Amino acid sequence: MLPAPHFIAFNPPRRILMGPGPSDVYPEVLAAQARPTVGHLDPLFVGMMDELKSLIQYAFQTKNEMTMAVSAPGSAGMETCFVNLVEPGEKVIVCRNGVFGDRMRQNVERMGAIAVLVDNEWGTPVDPAAVEAALKAHPDARFLAFVHAETSTGALSDAKTLCALAKQYGCLSIVDAVTSLGGVELRVDEWGIDAIYSGSQKCLSCVPGLSPVSFSPAAVEKLKNRKTPVQSWFLDQSLVMAYWTSAGGKRSYHHTAPVNALYALHESLRILAAEGLENAWQRHHEMHLVLRAGLEKLGLNFVVAEDYRLPQLNTVYIPAGVDDGVVRTRLLKDYNLEIGAGLGALAGKAWRIGLMGFGARRENVSLCLRALEEVLS
Amino acid sequence: MLPAPHFIAFNPPRRILMGPGPSDVYPEVLAAQARPTVGHLDPLFVGMMDELKSLIQYAFQTKNEMTMAVSAPGSAGMETCFVNLVEPGEKVIVCRNGVFGDRMRQNVERMGAIAVLVDNEWGTPVDPAAVEAALKAHPDARFLAFVHAETSTGALSDAKTLCALAKQYGCLSIVDAVTSLGGVELRVDEWGIDAIYSGSQKCLSCVPGLSPVSFSPAAVEKLKNRKTPVQSWFLDQSLVMAYWTSAGGKRSYHHTAPVNALYALHESLRILAAEGLENAWQRHHEMHLVLRAGLEKLGLNFVVAEDYRLPQLNTVYIPAGVDDGVVRTRLLKDYNLEIGAGLGALAGKAWRIGLMGFGARRENVSLCLRALEEVLS
Repeated sequence: MLPAPHFIAFNPPRRILMGPGPSDVYPEVLAAQARPTVGHLDPLFVGMMDELKSLIQYAFQTKNEMTMAVSAPGSAGMETCFVNLVEPGEKVIVCRNGVFGDRMRQNVERMGAIAVLVDNEWGTPVDPAAVEAALKAHPDARFLAFVHAETSTGALSDAKTLCALAKQYGCLSIVDAVTSLGGVELRVDEWGIDAIYSGSQKCLSCVPGLSPVSFSPAAVEKLKNRKTPVQSWFLDQSLVMAYWTSAGGKRSYHHTAPVNALYALHESLRILAAEGLENAWQRHHEMHLVLRAGLEKLGLNFVVAEDYRLPQLNTVYIPAGVDDGVVRTRLLKDYNLEIGAGLGALAGKAWRIGLMGFGARRENVSLCLRALEEVLS
Repeated sequence: MLPAPHFIAFNPPRRILMGPGPSDVYPEVLAAQARPTVGHLDPLFVGMMDELKSLIQYAFQTKNEMTMAVSAPGSAGMETCFVNLVEPGEKVIVCRNGVFGDRMRQNVERMGAIAVLVDNEWGTPVDPAAVEAALKAHPDARFLAFVHAETSTGALSDAKTLCALAKQYGCLSIVDAVTSLGGVELRVDEWGIDAIYSGSQKCLSCVPGLSPVSFSPAAVEKLKNRKTPVQSWFLDQSLVMAYWTSAGGKRSYHHTAPVNALYALHESLRILAAEGLENAWQRHHEMHLVLRAGLEKLGLNFVVAEDYRLPQLNTVYIPAGVDDGVVRTRLLKDYNLEIGAGLGALAGKAWRIGLMGFGARRENVSLCLRALEEVLS
């Protein structure tokens, strides 16, 4: 026998999470998650799942029947949208203005479909004119895919306009709302979004590990008329929905649901519904204004222009002569405060300061400003 | 705006989980999971992940470097093994003696590889002679895939013999250990298993949602020499391991890890290491003997013959004239006791009584026997 390792229990400190996610989790959510595990086919549990579905529909502002949470993180939600809708050989216009647009491209190419790239500079939004040009140049494209709120840069794109363009040119829209859901305006039905995914660990302030998704009737139609099977058994929505829907009171087992994580998501969405979406959007905006004023006073410059800056993810350039690692380590060690490093092209050049969900509170903003002032002085 | 739904907090009852999983979760695991969320790149968290890796290695009895937990349930662990190792057009010998062997076939076929089926009756183990015949008949096969402990029937297959056969005929072995890990003898290195996956919610008595996996050096070699990219970005082990390995102290972000769920897995594996694997195997065996004696006294007959019966999953025929649904509903409503329904070919014909991890305790066995006696009388 290989010997047993012996470790003491892991007791994480109480950090203040102001990076790009995970965000500070609501204490009620941590408590909900610790409630006793029940079976994934327990009638009480599947009743909770019905509530959870309506709560996700509310957060997305949709009546889409095919709305649920993927039992895995946002990257798996992204993959769920692509592998269910796109078939090998089909053309997808992929907008790339940061890390996550490029991840979309990788999803498309790995499944044997064709990605047509519309590139925009990091820190700027997706340009609708460039998208329209691509749609015109590729009349055989079936999908338009873009990131609503780029987590790598903090730029917000105009999802409403982009989805209208997709519709105009006969494409289905696939939208990454990982960082936007709950933090800025997002209206799935009104804007005509066909497939959307998010993550539990950003503005919902739930534990990381789940990805709410939703498919429009047009997307469901496309899924039903596939000529090839979905490449992933685990992510096949037709199979998953047999578990998420009570057809005549009966649910079919697909995989064992992450029971406790779903308790957590239910609780975090209950908190969002109680606050009200528009109030949550407003709160994120107000906290951003306070943070922005303070950061500017410290002489820090935003990467993203004001017009399309995300309130929940503030990306600022690291001042010349300042050591990125030293600052973030001091914030973490001395203040238990986490801010985010730059990602991809912005690695070492920028910090990402998150104000997400439960994290978008006045006390967090003040602590962050004061701590940065002390460390930078 | 679509109106906000208002639900009260979900307060699940305290069930006693004696189905095929999720099993009763250790109270320490629920408590660990509720600790404050920290960032997935926090130095303290990645230190915990290093410990977690050694704990998974211990549970699997392996020194494999490529050992980690997939951020999704066991079905995703299965898919991780297949999509990383198998390439389109390659031949896999898939043993099918229950639901999960057939799920392996679906994985293989959906990814464009070829499944050669070795069928054995439900409730019996995989027959090594039939496997050897298939290996002889298909010298171009690259993989042998089978389920160690079939959760749909309760039958245990001889993994050691099957893996030796795979090696003899130049195949890599892919083994489903979802229900076996922690409940019965399993020695990855000694038996020469090349790729293995399990689930958190069976004999580890952790919350559902994670899948420990491990790849042998030969499997890693196969992965490195792929001619085609892995079809799934989310499950691509080469990318995932850049996060799970501290190469020179640096970890690369892949996806946001399910932080709190990993706390839970760390704690459940700590409990297993403290008990000792062999003691845990022995405890499952002893509790099975007590349960078996009681079930036989009640006149219930096992589906699986004694020689290859799983101690942690006891499948018995529903007596003639007894209503499956009525019995299980009464157990759940009156006793808060969950036992499992039959699955696939055994649906409506059998019950599955789990004695998994924390659930394999004398008080559970006694309660189950007494409750069954009362409900059946």
